[in-house]
Amino acid sequence: MNDLDQVLAALDAGQPAALDRLFALIRIPSISTDPEWKADCRRAAEWLVDDLRSIGFDASVRDTSGHPVVVGHHGGDGPHVLFYGHYDVQPVDPLNEWASPPFEPKLEPRDGRTVIAGRGAADDKGQLMTFVEACRAYKAVHGKLPCRVSVIFEGEEESGSPSIIPFLKANAAELKADYALVCDTNMWDAQTPSISVGLRGLMEEEIIVTAADRDLHSGYFGGAAANPIHIVAKIAADLRDADGRILIPGFYDGVDETPPDILEMWNGLGRTAEGFLGSVGLKTPVGEKGRTILELTWARPTAEVNGITGGYTGEGFKTVIPSKASAKISCRLVHRQDPEKIRAAFRAFVRARVPADCSVEFINHGSAPATQLPYDSPVLAKARTALSAEWGKETIMACMGGSIPIVGLFQSMLGMDSVMVGFGLGDDRIHSPNEKYDLKSFQKGARSWARILAAIAT
Amino acid sequence: MNDLDQVLAALDAGQPAALDRLFALIRIPSISTDPEWKADCRRAAEWLVDDLRSIGFDASVRDTSGHPVVVGHHGGDGPHVLFYGHYDVQPVDPLNEWASPPFEPKLEPRDGRTVIAGRGAADDKGQLMTFVEACRAYKAVHGKLPCRVSVIFEGEEESGSPSIIPFLKANAAELKADYALVCDTNMWDAQTPSISVGLRGLMEEEIIVTAADRDLHSGYFGGAAANPIHIVAKIAADLRDADGRILIPGFYDGVDETPPDILEMWNGLGRTAEGFLGSVGLKTPVGEKGRTILELTWARPTAEVNGITGGYTGEGFKTVIPSKASAKISCRLVHRQDPEKIRAAFRAFVRARVPADCSVEFINHGSAPATQLPYDSPVLAKARTALSAEWGKETIMACMGGSIPIVGLFQSMLGMDSVMVGFGLGDDRIHSPNEKYDLKSFQKGARSWARILAAIAT
Repeated sequence: MNDLDQVLAALDAGQPAALDRLFALIRIPSISTDPEWKADCRRAAEWLVDDLRSIGFDASVRDTSGHPVVVGHHGGDGPHVLFYGHYDVQPVDPLNEWASPPFEPKLEPRDGRTVIAGRGAADDKGQLMTFVEACRAYKAVHGKLPCRVSVIFEGEEESGSPSIIPFLKANAAELKADYALVCDTNMWDAQTPSISVGLRGLMEEEIIVTAADRDLHSGYFGGAAANPIHIVAKIAADLRDADGRILIPGFYDGVDETPPDILEMWNGLGRTAEGFLGSVGLKTPVGEKGRTILELTWARPTAEVNGITGGYTGEGFKTVIPSKASAKISCRLVHRQDPEKIRAAFRAFVRARVPADCSVEFINHGSAPATQLPYDSPVLAKARTALSAEWGKETIMACMGGSIPIVGLFQSMLGMDSVMVGFGLGDDRIHSPNEKYDLKSFQKGARSWARILAAIAT
Repeated sequence: MNDLDQVLAALDAGQPAALDRLFALIRIPSISTDPEWKADCRRAAEWLVDDLRSIGFDASVRDTSGHPVVVGHHGGDGPHVLFYGHYDVQPVDPLNEWASPPFEPKLEPRDGRTVIAGRGAADDKGQLMTFVEACRAYKAVHGKLPCRVSVIFEGEEESGSPSIIPFLKANAAELKADYALVCDTNMWDAQTPSISVGLRGLMEEEIIVTAADRDLHSGYFGGAAANPIHIVAKIAADLRDADGRILIPGFYDGVDETPPDILEMWNGLGRTAEGFLGSVGLKTPVGEKGRTILELTWARPTAEVNGITGGYTGEGFKTVIPSKASAKISCRLVHRQDPEKIRAAFRAFVRARVPADCSVEFINHGSAPATQLPYDSPVLAKARTALSAEWGKETIMACMGGSIPIVGLFQSMLGMDSVMVGFGLGDDRIHSPNEKYDLKSFQKGARSWARILAAIAT
């Protein structure tokens, strides 16, 4: 048995004890959004510190202005990796929809699989423990880790991460590694492992258009006075052409074409417009013509109105020409698009559509650049080979349509790429009642990390 | 002294007694929207019946499912006119903004004029009593009225007139006259009498567009899934072209050009874009290019979004692609435009812009056709001459941008044109604290009706 096989065997043999540990962690109701559970958040952080110390990590609970962060370091040769997970969980309402109490984890059969039921089982306690168990087994078998490993476990991921930026800033030198490993994503399906190589960024902006200085009666003023709803509607309508292309000047600067072999891989995944959109009652993609669903949602930018309001919106009817109308608009960004350049271009696009006697106010609701690892990055190739070996199936190089803010922060604040590998599944019901994590995800997830660590060390 | 001059002299001599009567009527707090004042509404109706009977009208309080209607008839030779007014008044909140109690009417100086202060002084008790006083003086001087006169005083005008349609339907034969006289409008200014010859109609419609069958996350679905906000925005944006012309097919069917002499009269009134729009902080008219403010707001139709909502509109930001978005849209209509044809054309216009995999629901919020008297109608000519004689200034043939529903109902249900003459002023503060009616409006209003009745009889 080679070095790795011994570790994998140890993981298999140690599964009952690993489950006991995960259950102990799940039993701590570390709900970060509700101050009622503040002490439990700290208790979860302390539990993790104790567990890391038992493996030989130099670990500590680090205070922030909110819930604490857990940081641990373990020496080793070769590359230095920083593993990220979060120990906080979502609230459990509505409680009466849970088949069993959310903080009393148990194994149960569901849809022909054995699952770990409980709040946080998948998001993110089960996922982060896959990495911890891999380290534990490695250490137990070999007395050391295959490379230098640091970990950071956040306690505010489910409540907007208010403390993470100051924390990263204050501890940048300590936390900087060669790359981050992030375990907070899904597999493509229950058989197919996946590495998330790209995440779309985001630019969020609100516009408030003011026409007259008061609400007007449409009988008296209608036909003469500007209506801010029409101005905002025109801006929204002008954002895209009939082929789904976004018309903000310069918008596509920094958007790369996805490599043909990657597009071909995505095509092989069989995500059709009928299947994907059909699941929510739709049929026809609205994005740029000639691109597939996966390309549209993973590797193309968007400009989308997420909210609009103006005038009378209650029951019945009022013939008002309102003074103000507003919209919240976001752009999903890809590759090298610069969020603040997009914001400036968007504002110019809006200003050009606001008449001289009307005005517009902009509210910056934040932004995050896209993150994209080069598809040919060596660390990706290693992780991919390791995952494919564990799951017996080719690993998908995927992207995600949404953001994982920590990945952008690792990039922008620590200059560190993230390798995103996770073992969640689409039916894990994270953020909902009856959250679960497949036992197979937990077990093969830990084995996957053992293989990845071994591969990275070579 | 001729017959008319005797009546005018009697009106002048009788002013103190006429004011006593008006004050008695104003003292009755006949607020129709609030059930607390239900008995007072009936008391106001009874007061009017008693007063009409004192002049020789066959008058009665007529029950409805809401507040009663007052109907009175007085015989006479020549044409038969039906006079309309309403005895109910608006609520008085906020009470602390009234300089004197709203139901304790008094004469007071205001801005260099003597005014009657009190709720309903202008809207519409003072206005309707101008007609009653004209009849009283005529009867007192000549023992008869110059023509056959019926009156109808409504008690629910300020609360949506729920009973008026069934009442008109049930009493059509009794109420049908040669024309209606309606006293619920304003003069052009304090010196210039005005007859309202046209009122814009209204077509009100709500659209609710549904795309996906649930709200979607814009990271996961953005770029692929249809966004109903964009569909509604496109519909709103497509309603008008850059020159302000409305693009619903067939929309302008039945829209007449206003006669050149009328346009010239309107041009002489000096209502500029700068003045009219400047008063509300705007500068540039948005309606059809090449038409004046008065033509745009009096004699041209509109298509206007009065309310729009979709997605997340609270504080902060949510990157949602909503399932639904909706808009309330109204068209102000003129001349012979058919509201229901416009509604059908609008719906087709909307349907053509809703993708096949999305759907739209329409809510009919009602409609009223425009009313337009021929500018060369003989009765208008008589009323105009009478008014010009009383005020010593040429009478404006005006239109109104808004609707007076009763006028449309008289037209559609009783086949009867309305001559709209009123003596209100823009600063009467109707519906607001400190409502007033100029004493001059009350006095010369009554004299005006005496002249109009005399003219109609010839």
